[in-house]
Amino acid sequence: MKRLAILGSTGSIGQSTLSIVEQFPERYSVATLAAGRNIEAVFAQTIRWRPKLVSLATEELASQLSSRLRKVGITEAEVVYGREGTVACSTHGDADFVVSAIVGVAGLEATHAAILAGKPVGLANKECMVAAGEILTSAARQRNVPILPIDSEHNAVHQCLRVGAHGEVKTIWLTASGGPFRQLPLDQFASITPEQALKHPTWVMGRRITIDSATMLNKGLEVIEACRLFDVPPSKVCVTVHPQSTVHSLVEYIDGSILAQISVTDMRLPILYALAFPERPASDLTFDLAALRHLEFEQPDFARFPCLRLAFEAAEKGGAHCIALNAADEVAVEAFLDRRIPFMGIPGTIEKVLASTPESHPATIAAVLASDREARQKARALLA
Amino acid sequence: MKRLAILGSTGSIGQSTLSIVEQFPERYSVATLAAGRNIEAVFAQTIRWRPKLVSLATEELASQLSSRLRKVGITEAEVVYGREGTVACSTHGDADFVVSAIVGVAGLEATHAAILAGKPVGLANKECMVAAGEILTSAARQRNVPILPIDSEHNAVHQCLRVGAHGEVKTIWLTASGGPFRQLPLDQFASITPEQALKHPTWVMGRRITIDSATMLNKGLEVIEACRLFDVPPSKVCVTVHPQSTVHSLVEYIDGSILAQISVTDMRLPILYALAFPERPASDLTFDLAALRHLEFEQPDFARFPCLRLAFEAAEKGGAHCIALNAADEVAVEAFLDRRIPFMGIPGTIEKVLASTPESHPATIAAVLASDREARQKARALLA
Repeated sequence: MKRLAILGSTGSIGQSTLSIVEQFPERYSVATLAAGRNIEAVFAQTIRWRPKLVSLATEELASQLSSRLRKVGITEAEVVYGREGTVACSTHGDADFVVSAIVGVAGLEATHAAILAGKPVGLANKECMVAAGEILTSAARQRNVPILPIDSEHNAVHQCLRVGAHGEVKTIWLTASGGPFRQLPLDQFASITPEQALKHPTWVMGRRITIDSATMLNKGLEVIEACRLFDVPPSKVCVTVHPQSTVHSLVEYIDGSILAQISVTDMRLPILYALAFPERPASDLTFDLAALRHLEFEQPDFARFPCLRLAFEAAEKGGAHCIALNAADEVAVEAFLDRRIPFMGIPGTIEKVLASTPESHPATIAAVLASDREARQKARALLA
Repeated sequence: MKRLAILGSTGSIGQSTLSIVEQFPERYSVATLAAGRNIEAVFAQTIRWRPKLVSLATEELASQLSSRLRKVGITEAEVVYGREGTVACSTHGDADFVVSAIVGVAGLEATHAAILAGKPVGLANKECMVAAGEILTSAARQRNVPILPIDSEHNAVHQCLRVGAHGEVKTIWLTASGGPFRQLPLDQFASITPEQALKHPTWVMGRRITIDSATMLNKGLEVIEACRLFDVPPSKVCVTVHPQSTVHSLVEYIDGSILAQISVTDMRLPILYALAFPERPASDLTFDLAALRHLEFEQPDFARFPCLRLAFEAAEKGGAHCIALNAADEVAVEAFLDRRIPFMGIPGTIEKVLASTPESHPATIAAVLASDREARQKARALLA
């Protein structure tokens, strides 16, 4: 029985993780739940899953939840809050495995603390790896703690990497759906609206990641994540546009063999893989290969998707440039959704922030967070 | 340094193996060469590779080769002949690895002897596995001898199987090019000529295997081979028609993940994989993923390709039925190439031979060979 700490329990990955727990009660149980402000959802989850520890964003929310739980007779769940609360959830003595699914750098401290505490991590939060990948992976190596990627691309890569040695990898090919503007002529990019950008052809996701998918910045973050997770230079990572989102990624070996992973587009599959690794439990998430008709692959167009180029440049420089890429993008995406800047203002903002970022490699989580704040301030100042 | 015994050195796989030895002189050398009647080619190979032992089909050919070698001053190569000669090559004390690439059941005894002698085998001869798979795999298990498949499909499956446990395999998907008649209407199958059937869209191969590819009997033999090599029932093996021959096969796991192997259509790649396993040396056999445009997959049509249905039926019965399938096909293909029967007479002949074959499971190589002769006689009698 693996007892899980679920960071971000009310989000999409958190809910999918709980549906896996529901499906495999003999394998998994819930030790702790960390969430933000969705008190109704956490209340229901606590009643259903009876965690030992629950964390919410603020003291006020925590005390509300506490009293509501007492009213229904649930007294064994301790309720905490804030950054320390999330860390307490990720390092709790009863947790055997941490699902890190808090969006943004908010989940960073708790993920780092989990690794320092020797807990295996299923990582759904790509910003963690982008902002502090060097720190997290070196801590994981020192403590021999596995970090299992939960997003579909890196999960696919993780699987394909089992077919050869690290030194035998030639190229990691991350597939990209190409987003809603894959075939839009370049001259129409200037007039893209938030409504258009929020319509993703394949995946239903949060607002920022949907916009990041439309600009392909999301794929750029994944390039950086792949470099850190799998310890390869950016020159060994390529992106291929694959609109069917059926092949989740590929690994090319030096002998000429390419391994690809194919499955339904359902996040429960990579979650299950990460939770059960190295085992594969039987699931009902079957892909109908007999119904597979055709697959397309094409090269990404850096002219229409400058965010992808910027990400490769940041990946080469590492450290503060990766932090700034992610931070500036988050600020710029908000501004785009608020209609303060046009669609191509997103890469424009990122490029300016990157240009004014000196090369540095923050060595602590505190330094990473400071570097992140600095980049956000720069981006906000640019957009003011 | 791995010293190779190459059975079938003058055939296509034998020549490709020698080109790998040429490319990786620090990894591989030639210990023995077994061939048939192509004395010119064997003479040149012996001069180039300096094996300790060479075998030809007959005593006369062997003595011709001997005297020609002496004339050019090569005295260290012993020359033998016939079935015993081939076995001597496959079990020679200097051989560390046996490439079994003699077409048909002719290579069977030598392959069995190599396994009994504890030598790892790279198997390019699918008839061996079809006719005597149960005997070969059980001998290999007892002696802990690896059998590494050299044909592209099973080599792909071997790679994809490294990503999960045996009990976690749901389906092995063998890809088939579909051959030249993939889109031919059923009513035109009656008038297919040998010339049409010998034009394979993807691979350049021998005459029988090219016809077997046109009838899809070849894929049926591969289904049986997969069952034996990977120890799965026929119900766990499926065929998918993939005209691009880019994905060489796939493995579907019970959790819903499918792993696929992609590479150029060049036999040197599976040969190198088998020789170097578990390592992957760098090769120039690169597949241009950036040039990959689209891939198609479709279900095979058992009405137009009854040989495939017959193979699945034989796979279910095992033993003598698999032997008869292969033997009857070889006789029927000869008859088709001699214009004695029409194209659809090939499955017709096989079906009749299978129908008159009692269920039995020959337990020795001698019994397998006797069963093979019996099936050939039946087929010849039917066609007389």
